[in-house]
Amino acid sequence: MYLEGRIVDFTDKLASKSPEPGGGAASALAAAIAAALVSMVANLTVGKEKYADVQDRISELLEASEAVRKKLEELVQKDTEVYGVLSVAFKMPRETDEQKAERAKAVQAALKEATMVPYEIAERCLEVAVLSETAADIGNVGAVSDAGVAVLLAEAAARSAALNVKINLTSIDDPEFVSEKWSGIKDILSKSASLKEKVEKVTYEKLG
Amino acid sequence: MYLEGRIVDFTDKLASKSPEPGGGAASALAAAIAAALVSMVANLTVGKEKYADVQDRISELLEASEAVRKKLEELVQKDTEVYGVLSVAFKMPRETDEQKAERAKAVQAALKEATMVPYEIAERCLEVAVLSETAADIGNVGAVSDAGVAVLLAEAAARSAALNVKINLTSIDDPEFVSEKWSGIKDILSKSASLKEKVEKVTYEKLG
Repeated sequence: MYLEGRIVDFTDKLASKSPEPGGGAASALAAAIAAALVSMVANLTVGKEKYADVQDRISELLEASEAVRKKLEELVQKDTEVYGVLSVAFKMPRETDEQKAERAKAVQAALKEATMVPYEIAERCLEVAVLSETAADIGNVGAVSDAGVAVLLAEAAARSAALNVKINLTSIDDPEFVSEKWSGIKDILSKSASLKEKVEKVTYEKLG
Repeated sequence: MYLEGRIVDFTDKLASKSPEPGGGAASALAAAIAAALVSMVANLTVGKEKYADVQDRISELLEASEAVRKKLEELVQKDTEVYGVLSVAFKMPRETDEQKAERAKAVQAALKEATMVPYEIAERCLEVAVLSETAADIGNVGAVSDAGVAVLLAEAAARSAALNVKINLTSIDDPEFVSEKWSGIKDILSKSASLKEKVEKVTYEKLG
């Protein structure tokens, strides 16, 4: 489990020619860091008299940011594992026509599975971006820059995950699946880009 | 040393109300991940016959990306430490006029020191963005998405570091320092934004 390992071991292996971890796991980790920053803003607001009016919303925010952080931390691992599934399918024998057909079927199934991991990472990034807006709006103003960093990293991680969705889609021969997933990604990217612009602006306004 | 510790311990402490690590350390780590991805592209290109023509440039790229990764990994730690310097200055006594003047002087010096850490993070992020362009242009095309992720995370990390520069600048009473540093940051952000747009486009083109 990478998450249980040392940071330097992760970045060292990322830098190596090992096929995993790669950009997918990197984007999940960047988004987990963003989620942690939303939690930090919430934790710096909990129990403060100045923010008495928003305590219920802050508790909800913290619950949501910690839940999505956990999911993203799991996705760091899942992205490295799905590479194995694809690798096994590509190594299947292809001597007879029957073998070729079976291999093609397995590769297509593995590609769809491999698509859905960065797809879910992108979905979770959008969740983090939504939560960072709440953090910037009602959280401790002394930590507003952390809400700003959260939205910036979450949006970049969503765009990064999109690249990893795209790689798999280019090899999938199910046009309906391809068009549905790519349209989903475009929607996620458009929403997270708006949130980035909005929350970054609010952050600078509150910094004065 | 956070880098020598487990990833979950870093994200857990980031999520807590502890004042450090915060957004500055988070942006340095995101940029170190981006640098590692440039190294990955370089490592997947080294020694490949198909890329024989660019082996010298790839070796230079790898050397540069590993050097900037090491700097960014050090900056994760430095950002958490500079908070301590600021905290000590703020806690200085301010009963007499003399104490007040001494404290103000120490706070101003600490704020300048605290400004320069995220400022250097932003400078290093731009370096990573520049290197990711080379990775996307001449690196193994099978890893082009990793060059794309690198530029996206590096650009977001630069914008994140800028927020942390801004926080400190708002309390510094040396207009020349403030205007010089902010103009430097605007230049870094404008350059990294152009690189992001360019490299993301190249990545999609090469993914097909």
